[in-house]
Amino acid sequence: MKKEQTIASVGEFELIKNYFTPLSSREVAGVIVGIGDDAAQLAIPEGQELVVSTDTLVEGIHFSKGADPYLLGRKSLRVNLSDLAAMGALPCWYFLSLTTPPTTRLDWIKEFSRGLKDDGEDFGIGLVGGDTTGSKKALVVTITVIGSVEKGCSTLRSGARVGDKIFLSGTLGDSALGLAYHLENLKIANLDDRVYLLKRHQLPEPRVVLALALVEGGVTSAAIDVSDGLTADLAHICAASNVGAEVDVEKIPLSAAAKRVLKRHGPDMLAKVLTGGEDYELLFTVAPAMVADVAAIAEKVGVVVTEIGEITAGSSVNINQQGRPLNLDCTGWTHF
Amino acid sequence: MKKEQTIASVGEFELIKNYFTPLSSREVAGVIVGIGDDAAQLAIPEGQELVVSTDTLVEGIHFSKGADPYLLGRKSLRVNLSDLAAMGALPCWYFLSLTTPPTTRLDWIKEFSRGLKDDGEDFGIGLVGGDTTGSKKALVVTITVIGSVEKGCSTLRSGARVGDKIFLSGTLGDSALGLAYHLENLKIANLDDRVYLLKRHQLPEPRVVLALALVEGGVTSAAIDVSDGLTADLAHICAASNVGAEVDVEKIPLSAAAKRVLKRHGPDMLAKVLTGGEDYELLFTVAPAMVADVAAIAEKVGVVVTEIGEITAGSSVNINQQGRPLNLDCTGWTHF
Repeated sequence: MKKEQTIASVGEFELIKNYFTPLSSREVAGVIVGIGDDAAQLAIPEGQELVVSTDTLVEGIHFSKGADPYLLGRKSLRVNLSDLAAMGALPCWYFLSLTTPPTTRLDWIKEFSRGLKDDGEDFGIGLVGGDTTGSKKALVVTITVIGSVEKGCSTLRSGARVGDKIFLSGTLGDSALGLAYHLENLKIANLDDRVYLLKRHQLPEPRVVLALALVEGGVTSAAIDVSDGLTADLAHICAASNVGAEVDVEKIPLSAAAKRVLKRHGPDMLAKVLTGGEDYELLFTVAPAMVADVAAIAEKVGVVVTEIGEITAGSSVNINQQGRPLNLDCTGWTHF
Repeated sequence: MKKEQTIASVGEFELIKNYFTPLSSREVAGVIVGIGDDAAQLAIPEGQELVVSTDTLVEGIHFSKGADPYLLGRKSLRVNLSDLAAMGALPCWYFLSLTTPPTTRLDWIKEFSRGLKDDGEDFGIGLVGGDTTGSKKALVVTITVIGSVEKGCSTLRSGARVGDKIFLSGTLGDSALGLAYHLENLKIANLDDRVYLLKRHQLPEPRVVLALALVEGGVTSAAIDVSDGLTADLAHICAASNVGAEVDVEKIPLSAAAKRVLKRHGPDMLAKVLTGGEDYELLFTVAPAMVADVAAIAEKVGVVVTEIGEITAGSSVNINQQGRPLNLDCTGWTHF
């Protein structure tokens, strides 16, 4: 039966030819040699520098066995695009390393590659190489993305200055609450809220367009994407910039769904929102004189951004509730 | 006891700080931002293009449980460097994605990273980013390398022309015989031969220096590294170039150790030599007028190269013994 075909039954070369070579769009600029030689050969325009990031998703760690392969394909690419956004880089090309058991069904590959294709087209990034390997049981997806920035124009973690305002795109904590519903059976009364929060976990929105507009406007002093959790990622900016930070928890933007969950479940859930991670929102700092520009840029690209605090002297990073620092046990998501 | 420390006991950030950040040599050119931000930022000299390749090694598939982590670190980098060599590219930077079970001992990480460090220094390539993730059981190493070539100067698979001579660096089949000794208990009488063949499997020699010299000399019409086996990789060149090939098995360069194994075990072992793969030797084609230059370049860089056959019209790829094509069952190493 065709539906039961596995990757072992078609082999590596057919797999690449049928499912991955088609992701190598000819419309993506700068591809001198794409899939099919020993390596890709790529041309970057004069005056531009490369920005490169790699992220790995592991079954049983980053996603559950049985996760929707279409959404997994999209998320695998999006978490990497989020790193490029944090640097203010334009996405150009990506490489896929896919490690799968031989029993993986072709249907799975088809859906996974369709997810990559759809998001690759949406974000204007083409597959240019990779490696498909077998494993005994493990399913591991590693994507390496290459973007470009004008020389000297990237947004680093190290540029925050005392007095800068701290901004966050979108809303925080949706992903962590969606995951808690999925894994810990968190009670969420409203069906729409469950669907919304789960979707935010499964399909984050990398802030590529916002980041490029902020870089073009020259308003960002430092930036990071929130993957480890707001507290941990803000601490990364502060450590790299040798500064501290004060954030008002009351200012942190929450979705209506997250607000309802917090109202019902209280403080435990607040810790999840602040430290859960996988938000892939853009956390960035802006000199006071540029704050008005941020609002204009955000409105132009149609992304909500919220001022949540300020960079301070010293090294303490505080999330304050009613003016007093919260004591958060967990400072971010770790892998081991 | 310190010896029993695992990666779970130190966590991701300590792991990166202690074992991987030190691999990020400050002497490697073009690193604007290295490890420690959301992505690496890299500058490539004007007039150069990028060459990028990625390769994954999986425990239980590409290496055995209990494999020496120092040699594994070196091999992980070398198989990627071999892809750059096949394109005629100068190695610049690499990214490491390491997926390991939480029970992985710190000693293992220490040795693995020492292997990367030693070979990174030898080949002049620096670590500039990556991702360390946990897994339940799987140990997976993905490395992405970035090299550079002068615009229009790479050596592709597609450049072979009828009448070109086919050359191979080093000796063929040592790796496959070493693996057969390791996994299939192949009888190898001589202890030195066992050590030599196993070493050739564990620690291939990417032909970076030879490849760069050949590109500089402008003598190579097409090139590939022998990773899937001579027959499969020669077929890749022929398919990409729309040509055929005739190779004389008698001309294929063999080590003294491989010759002794073939003498004892006969034709079965010959198939392994021709199709076993993981040789990471350079297979390249040269126009007849340039053949003399090849010898001079090879002598200059101190690598033995051997003419083994000729590119022909048509599409058949034959390995001939006493003038008649061998019938080889296995046409190359596949992953599933």
